[in-house]
Amino acid sequence: MRLTPAERRANPAHMLDLRPVGYVIGLLVAVLGAAMVLPMMIDIAEGRAHWPVFLQSALFTVLAGGLIAVACSNGVKEGLTIQQTFILTTGVWVALPLFGAIPFVLGATEARFVDAFFEAMSGLTTTGSTVFTGLETLPKGLLLWRGILQWLGGIGIIVVAMVFLPELRVGGMQIFKSEAFDTMGKILPRATQIASQISSIYLGLTMACALCYLALGLDAFDATVHALTTVSTGGFANYDASFGTFSGPPEYVASLFMILAALPFVRYVQMINGHTEPLWRDSQVRVFLITLMIIVLAIAIALTQIFPKDAETAFREALFNVTSIMTGTGYSSADYMQWGPLLISLFFFIGLIGGCAGSTTCSIKIFRYQLLFASIRLQLRKIRSPNGVFIVRYEKRAVDEEVLSSVMSFFMFFVLTLGLLAVALSLTGLDFITSLSGAATALSNVGPGLGDEIGPAGNFAGLNDTAKWLLSLGMLLGRLELLAVYAMLTLSFWRD
Amino acid sequence: MRLTPAERRANPAHMLDLRPVGYVIGLLVAVLGAAMVLPMMIDIAEGRAHWPVFLQSALFTVLAGGLIAVACSNGVKEGLTIQQTFILTTGVWVALPLFGAIPFVLGATEARFVDAFFEAMSGLTTTGSTVFTGLETLPKGLLLWRGILQWLGGIGIIVVAMVFLPELRVGGMQIFKSEAFDTMGKILPRATQIASQISSIYLGLTMACALCYLALGLDAFDATVHALTTVSTGGFANYDASFGTFSGPPEYVASLFMILAALPFVRYVQMINGHTEPLWRDSQVRVFLITLMIIVLAIAIALTQIFPKDAETAFREALFNVTSIMTGTGYSSADYMQWGPLLISLFFFIGLIGGCAGSTTCSIKIFRYQLLFASIRLQLRKIRSPNGVFIVRYEKRAVDEEVLSSVMSFFMFFVLTLGLLAVALSLTGLDFITSLSGAATALSNVGPGLGDEIGPAGNFAGLNDTAKWLLSLGMLLGRLELLAVYAMLTLSFWRD
Ligand SMILES: [K+]
Ligand SMILES: [K+]
Repeated sequence: MRLTPAERRANPAHMLDLRPVGYVIGLLVAVLGAAMVLPMMIDIAEGRAHWPVFLQSALFTVLAGGLIAVACSNGVKEGLTIQQTFILTTGVWVALPLFGAIPFVLGATEARFVDAFFEAMSGLTTTGSTVFTGLETLPKGLLLWRGILQWLGGIGIIVVAMVFLPELRVGGMQIFKSEAFDTMGKILPRATQIASQISSIYLGLTMACALCYLALGLDAFDATVHALTTVSTGGFANYDASFGTFSGPPEYVASLFMILAALPFVRYVQMINGHTEPLWRDSQVRVFLITLMIIVLAIAIALTQIFPKDAETAFREALFNVTSIMTGTGYSSADYMQWGPLLISLFFFIGLIGGCAGSTTCSIKIFRYQLLFASIRLQLRKIRSPNGVFIVRYEKRAVDEEVLSSVMSFFMFFVLTLGLLAVALSLTGLDFITSLSGAATALSNVGPGLGDEIGPAGNFAGLNDTAKWLLSLGMLLGRLELLAVYAMLTLSFWRD
Repeated sequence: MRLTPAERRANPAHMLDLRPVGYVIGLLVAVLGAAMVLPMMIDIAEGRAHWPVFLQSALFTVLAGGLIAVACSNGVKEGLTIQQTFILTTGVWVALPLFGAIPFVLGATEARFVDAFFEAMSGLTTTGSTVFTGLETLPKGLLLWRGILQWLGGIGIIVVAMVFLPELRVGGMQIFKSEAFDTMGKILPRATQIASQISSIYLGLTMACALCYLALGLDAFDATVHALTTVSTGGFANYDASFGTFSGPPEYVASLFMILAALPFVRYVQMINGHTEPLWRDSQVRVFLITLMIIVLAIAIALTQIFPKDAETAFREALFNVTSIMTGTGYSSADYMQWGPLLISLFFFIGLIGGCAGSTTCSIKIFRYQLLFASIRLQLRKIRSPNGVFIVRYEKRAVDEEVLSSVMSFFMFFVLTLGLLAVALSLTGLDFITSLSGAATALSNVGPGLGDEIGPAGNFAGLNDTAKWLLSLGMLLGRLELLAVYAMLTLSFWRD
């Protein structure tokens, strides 16, 4: 229904009501503020007098979030419209980094706002690109805060991917719409219910990961922070050398948990509810694991040939680094930097693969490639038999034409955004490799790019401010599967 | 209808009959051989005793082509099946480079076959990447032969794009199916008829271009060869410095004719037949010219800011180089190399735009971007109104869903092929920039890549043989809009 502005003012029921959106965002901001108590406690324990930073940040953030929620509370209804759901999704990932950045501004990092925002966005989108160096010397509170941002971002995105995106029909995610949660009622109550189930699983994985790290000799703090950034496939590390500090057995643990975090969390819920076999029967799980193993073995063999590496070392390094990039975690091990330009540039393409839908991973994702290749086969057969009727199947069910064109659009959006972002970055003065790999690593939330500046041995600190804003935008777009943001760019979106 | 192998042998009418395909290929090979008489004559005139190379090549090629045609002549019928048309299209662009390469092997270039084939493929696909240096010192016959290969490739592709591809429903080209030539009967007679009309126009443009070059001081030989490679948007030049040799007014002439060659040739046919206004009313022409002008002006302004260049120089350089890359010609002017990495890396993306359908240009092409953006708008509106019915229009007519998904598939094929080709090239040992830009420049038939090795100042001679074969394959795939080749990769293609 279209109304004139006068009619709209006369009838407020038809105006876009942002209060339910503001209410949820306010609550989440307050939760983020409450989470700042943890780094405060670590700072108190460390005794470097850094804890007031988190006390101030927490008070301000809880207060601001609470005020927003209270101010909007009179407009809260059960359920959200499609329009409100879109605004909420993007709004959360814009609001939380704004507040999450505060400790980096006030704290020992003494960051300018652009850097602090970049770091917080990189955290909450589980990207893991960092602008800080000398990580070893930072107060423990700040390091824990970086881990917490990624951990919260990880659980947040699983809920969004399972509840919101299928509902919003974004990028082919509607294919997962009827799975498991179809009868759970309206979108907000369902989100709460799923979030609590998923949170237990996510927390369980994190604790298991931390215990394994602990068992292999990491101290309690490193084990905790790296568990937070492993299970969220975030990739922030406590050391400038990234995961290179923990060469050896911890790399196997990290690989295992990165892989577990890249699988669809809906399957874990089903397994807990007594369905024991759905994990391997899920075709995206199979394709993901098989693809991963083929690339790992190929690179491991290449490493034994190029270097005099023994089989175990070659396998471990290949497993760890390929898993890290393909799941979009973005840790790198010490030796990886010496693999030479050939192997490293392969990682540009591996980063564009991604994990399973409904996990913490980002990028194009396995199920989209499955549907893309199915649709490629269909196109080729159609060329030969223009009047033939062909059906694409996924998980043995016929896939709607609409889902296919939605997936193809996603791919198009991804590539065009990648191109435009790379052009924009190069217009700020970055060279070709930095622009292109920076755009790709931001959009696919991997973390490291290519080249001397932002490569695995580099750091994003030296980029110009415009580039940092552009990359922050890229991380946001990529994390929300692009269309959840782009949908708001059409005029018709804002009509009643 | 599927038959068992035994049934198929028993009933030869159901076997794939390659004789009509062989007949046409044989004739075209013979024509190519006949065309070698021209460089022979130039070689005789130059008096460097190089002419026997072309005499031998011509005799061998005409004889081989003639024998193929004669051997297949008993199977010729009026018209081809879809299957035969596919095989013919790819077959022509594989067979002609094989024979076109002969003079480079026998002649003063003394090329190994891989280099000679690369150069001939680069010619016939109008790519313009070269493996030869010291062009100034080569016999004139060889330089003319490079020009002739591109010129023939150019006219060839116009005919294919106007007649074959719409019929084969490749990459959304079916949108041009009903245009102008719908009632002309079966595919081979129609091809002959269109080819003769287009040839006059193409020849006219070439002669006009040559006369303009001549008037601006180029000698008759340079004017002729560069006219051949301008109008075909091929980009081979007679000098290692490419078009840098002719700085100044000739750049305007080249720009004008590159632009004319990038417009849809069907419009010229219509204009000759008395329709005076269709050129500007064609929306892809408008979008192409407007896009070109915006980029030219932006870069011209940038050049006046970055360098102390006067307005005319900046405009001329921007116009010439942007037009050269966007039309996929691939000439470069002397100053372009000094523009710095920032501007040059923009050219990577400009090369992915392309010209109009039914011209000599390659790459993704303007009409596909128009349809992609229309389909993007549609997707965004569908997200907001899932049950809404939206119609994409092109040239005021509703576009079939099938055309849209065909265009999206083309884009997908293009990007995935680009990625795979880049990975394959980097596996042969090329660095990231060379692999990626080499794959892009081959697929979009532009010519120069980026970086020190294959950039505008570089040359493809130093690449390893595998890379040269891969790039030749890339040129072939790109020139035939990928799907015309890929269609043959499905099993069902080969069934009766
Ligand atoms: K990451
Ligand atoms: K070219």
